[in-house]
Amino acid sequence: MKSNSFDRKKHIYRSEVFVELVKDAVRFFNGTPVHSLPTPEVFLGVGVYALYYTGKNPLYLKYAALNRLAYNYPIYVGKAVPKGWRQSRISDSSATQSRELHNRIKEHGRSITVGAGLLLEEFMCRFVIFEDEASDMIGTIEAALIKLNQPLWNVAVDGFGNHDPGKGRYGQAKSDWDVLHPGRPWAERCKGAHKDDRVIVTNIETHFNRIGV
Amino acid sequence: MKSNSFDRKKHIYRSEVFVELVKDAVRFFNGTPVHSLPTPEVFLGVGVYALYYTGKNPLYLKYAALNRLAYNYPIYVGKAVPKGWRQSRISDSSATQSRELHNRIKEHGRSITVGAGLLLEEFMCRFVIFEDEASDMIGTIEAALIKLNQPLWNVAVDGFGNHDPGKGRYGQAKSDWDVLHPGRPWAERCKGAHKDDRVIVTNIETHFNRIGV
Repeated sequence: MKSNSFDRKKHIYRSEVFVELVKDAVRFFNGTPVHSLPTPEVFLGVGVYALYYTGKNPLYLKYAALNRLAYNYPIYVGKAVPKGWRQSRISDSSATQSRELHNRIKEHGRSITVGAGLLLEEFMCRFVIFEDEASDMIGTIEAALIKLNQPLWNVAVDGFGNHDPGKGRYGQAKSDWDVLHPGRPWAERCKGAHKDDRVIVTNIETHFNRIGV
Repeated sequence: MKSNSFDRKKHIYRSEVFVELVKDAVRFFNGTPVHSLPTPEVFLGVGVYALYYTGKNPLYLKYAALNRLAYNYPIYVGKAVPKGWRQSRISDSSATQSRELHNRIKEHGRSITVGAGLLLEEFMCRFVIFEDEASDMIGTIEAALIKLNQPLWNVAVDGFGNHDPGKGRYGQAKSDWDVLHPGRPWAERCKGAHKDDRVIVTNIETHFNRIGV
């Protein structure tokens, strides 16, 4: 098996099936019910979610218009997988029994509540649970949804999904999201030189132009 | 589409096909040629790789024994995807044209070279390139290989794949890997309280016992 020769072709994996599978999962995702935040019930499981904006903040009016008739344009897409799951420190069945996905959406709700200029009732969410072996698809489906939808808070405004960086790391800069929507207490502790808000606003305009909406 | 009722069942995605697809890709991975580090030629593409240890460091003698007849037990599994690709800031075709996978393996070679107690010639690597739409599989296949193989440097010894944390973050602790194999200049700048090396060595033993090798 050890080889001194090198042939790139031998290292390329091809799969037609895969492309169809991702499309199928994305179709399923887009057909699931939409809920307010936090979700009306606590539920178990891990998976992928999207947040949709429908409010009046001038920065995001485009989203309010785009989502007027159907929730097709998420402002943010994310995944929830329990810590340690990726390294199999916990089993698939424990992952299925975790509240990680519910909690992640709830945590986003808290960020929105404390962030200036946003109202929780201006957001809706959609989510899909992946159980057992299908949970390996989570990263792939998250990536596919991001590529497809180019959500603003994933692609052009960094930091919405950040956590408290913790001890020894407050030297870093406040994220773009925290500059636009100040209020998360740990973000205010970050003392690095952050981006000017006018730069971020320009990035938002550029983003909408680039994706042609 | 908006719904006030909540039914968890409507949010669960199931796929039989997916499980078979992952198995197929893992089989392909395990059948690819093995190379020394850095790879004998520069090549283009993104994908997944594994590193195999076959040397004499007492901490890792188990791997030398396990890989004596075939490279079946990676000490580390990783993925290489260009920065910005996940958010589609660059296109699939640019990803295909990047040297990211080659560079990542090369960078690991540098860590091994400067890390105390390791020799570059004691390592071999295996890698698979995913092109175009198949590149969405990268995260999934990396996760599957980690779950399957439980590589020591992914699961029980943190930090091998770390980068220079950079300005404002040197207050954090040196990683487990950097405690065992000091030498990376940026790691020596990290001044936080790191784990005791005896604790890390115990974790290694516990890990080998847990996975039953």
